[in-house]
Amino acid sequence: MIDPVALTQALLRADSVTPARGAVFDVLETALVPLGFAVDRFTVGEAPDGPVENLLAVRGDGPRHLAFAGHVDVVPPGGGWTGSPWSGEIRDGLLYGRGAVDMKGAVAAFVAAASRSDAGTLSLIITGDEEGPATYGTVALMERMASRGVVPDLCLVGEPTSTARLGDMVKIGRRGSVNIWIEVPGRQGHVAYPHLADNPIPRLIAILAEIEGVVLDEGTDWFQPSNIEVTDITVGNPAHNVIPAKASARLSIRFNDRHRGADLIEHIRAIAERHAPGVVVTGKVSGEAFLTEPGAFSTLLSDAIVGATGVTPELSTTGGTSDARFLSKLCPVVEFGLINATMHKVDEAVAVEDLRTLTDIYANVISRALD
Amino acid sequence: MIDPVALTQALLRADSVTPARGAVFDVLETALVPLGFAVDRFTVGEAPDGPVENLLAVRGDGPRHLAFAGHVDVVPPGGGWTGSPWSGEIRDGLLYGRGAVDMKGAVAAFVAAASRSDAGTLSLIITGDEEGPATYGTVALMERMASRGVVPDLCLVGEPTSTARLGDMVKIGRRGSVNIWIEVPGRQGHVAYPHLADNPIPRLIAILAEIEGVVLDEGTDWFQPSNIEVTDITVGNPAHNVIPAKASARLSIRFNDRHRGADLIEHIRAIAERHAPGVVVTGKVSGEAFLTEPGAFSTLLSDAIVGATGVTPELSTTGGTSDARFLSKLCPVVEFGLINATMHKVDEAVAVEDLRTLTDIYANVISRALD
Ligand SMILES: [Zn+2]
Ligand SMILES: [Zn+2]
Repeated sequence: MIDPVALTQALLRADSVTPARGAVFDVLETALVPLGFAVDRFTVGEAPDGPVENLLAVRGDGPRHLAFAGHVDVVPPGGGWTGSPWSGEIRDGLLYGRGAVDMKGAVAAFVAAASRSDAGTLSLIITGDEEGPATYGTVALMERMASRGVVPDLCLVGEPTSTARLGDMVKIGRRGSVNIWIEVPGRQGHVAYPHLADNPIPRLIAILAEIEGVVLDEGTDWFQPSNIEVTDITVGNPAHNVIPAKASARLSIRFNDRHRGADLIEHIRAIAERHAPGVVVTGKVSGEAFLTEPGAFSTLLSDAIVGATGVTPELSTTGGTSDARFLSKLCPVVEFGLINATMHKVDEAVAVEDLRTLTDIYANVISRALD
Repeated sequence: MIDPVALTQALLRADSVTPARGAVFDVLETALVPLGFAVDRFTVGEAPDGPVENLLAVRGDGPRHLAFAGHVDVVPPGGGWTGSPWSGEIRDGLLYGRGAVDMKGAVAAFVAAASRSDAGTLSLIITGDEEGPATYGTVALMERMASRGVVPDLCLVGEPTSTARLGDMVKIGRRGSVNIWIEVPGRQGHVAYPHLADNPIPRLIAILAEIEGVVLDEGTDWFQPSNIEVTDITVGNPAHNVIPAKASARLSIRFNDRHRGADLIEHIRAIAERHAPGVVVTGKVSGEAFLTEPGAFSTLLSDAIVGATGVTPELSTTGGTSDARFLSKLCPVVEFGLINATMHKVDEAVAVEDLRTLTDIYANVISRALD
């Protein structure tokens, strides 16, 4: 049986700032092969979003197929750490390192859990680019799975969903995310002769004032209300006496499963065109909203969590996006992992005890899902 | 008698990009001294707004005192000229050079006009910084005049006020100008957790939307309505997923004599504070509005223009600011000069014929004002 703490340390000692390749995957492969996993490592993509290494590991041919999805890349450590961000050292029961909770610890816990059982079919879907553009990450793994006929029945994503205590939160869905750019053209001129110019700023203000009043929805049983934030406005006019030639703004909309990204772009476009003929509105959907309705899978996971921790997890859809937005197209997806308090921060750390408890929970999920 | 064309050429051949010093003033002094003017040249100020050279020339001790105000600095010529911007060459009746109409031509015409008469008291108030920050220009000249007890009864500013034909427009006032900066503070955060952040953009939009609806006045007999332009908005947030920590905007208000700059700043501050407690509003008044009510001085000038050109000038207060905003504190000020179509442009040029006609007009003004 594999020790999740030792495996986490080995993973942490491999610098794997996104996009990750090489050493960190070597560590993982070395752990998986003796457990009977067929390991398929492949590198895809070109600069600037690649190349990226990914790993697909499959074991068994049982009738039920549980997949675990995660990533071994990490965000840059930044400065100010007490020790080295790559040391994997333990101090006072805490294991330190960039990626300790997000999410090498969870990857190690799942591998350790897999070492306790041979049931069903088990797969690991591990990317080296979740923290970066993710162009060649989980999406490429899903294409690989499709071409090989690897189709899980359930997918557990190991992102750090716990907040104050291990087990207090499970994600059963995520909001969608779309960024929208609004560019209003005008005609430059001197402020002393405004009739000879055409200031685009008043039209942009009118657009944004209307958008500020938009209520997309009131929320649903499982989702917060969808939310529009104006995140930037750019005019870029250094001259005090000049009316500028264009004005633009950027929106970020986080939306629930009542909406689709493309519809939101059209909604904003319609508002903008009403105030500013000739306006240019462009949008980029980072992910659609998804929901795995509470049911057998979430109950199974909750029971495992309650059994190991005594904590009943909240079933939540809050927070940012994750690769679950892609995987939700394959099969029901839930997300559960370590406490996220230190993720992306200085001195990221996981309690050694939490690593062992998470291993117990994952092992319990494997046996409940596959036995 | 001085030839205005030859003197304009000599002035144009002295490169005098703002702030001007030296050669161009030598040319002017050389012309003025033989006419009996006492020439007082002085240099004031330090970088970045100085040093600047200024010239105050006074002749006579008659009971009436007419001042002519102008500048010999010019804006940078830029590229694309047919000939050299400093050549002072004449082609097809047009005299070319940076400053030909703005306003070395008018300075030369006034000196030439002064060479035709010895009446009253005549002064020239000539700065080397009208086109730049003007910190050490006409304001410094006015201090010099005050300390020396030089107090004109009337002041003629030679800016290029004519538009399509020489004589079609006289300025009897100018709008005031104030720039105002509005900075709304907020608290940075992630767009997925807007309740943990405080986006300043909605408050800035609300402020600007209200300002867009403000009607300062409907105009007066002599002035256009005061006008507010939002000239810039800055957030400067490159991160799509981040709610920014501050948002700011800049306004330019051109206002008539119904307002004072400081009051407008307070008016904007009151609007801003209603929407955004903690907002920082700062303002800079470039000049207050002024009006020389149509009367004896403008009639005298109009009569001189009609006599020389057959054109009845419009008495206007349109356009940008000029140093008349300072001089209006001394005595009644009107502005009249060459056609401004090529000012600040490539191939700036004055018709030789216009230089001679302007000299006639100025000479007529001198004799009507002082005889
Ligand atoms: Zn992660
Ligand atoms: Zn000028």
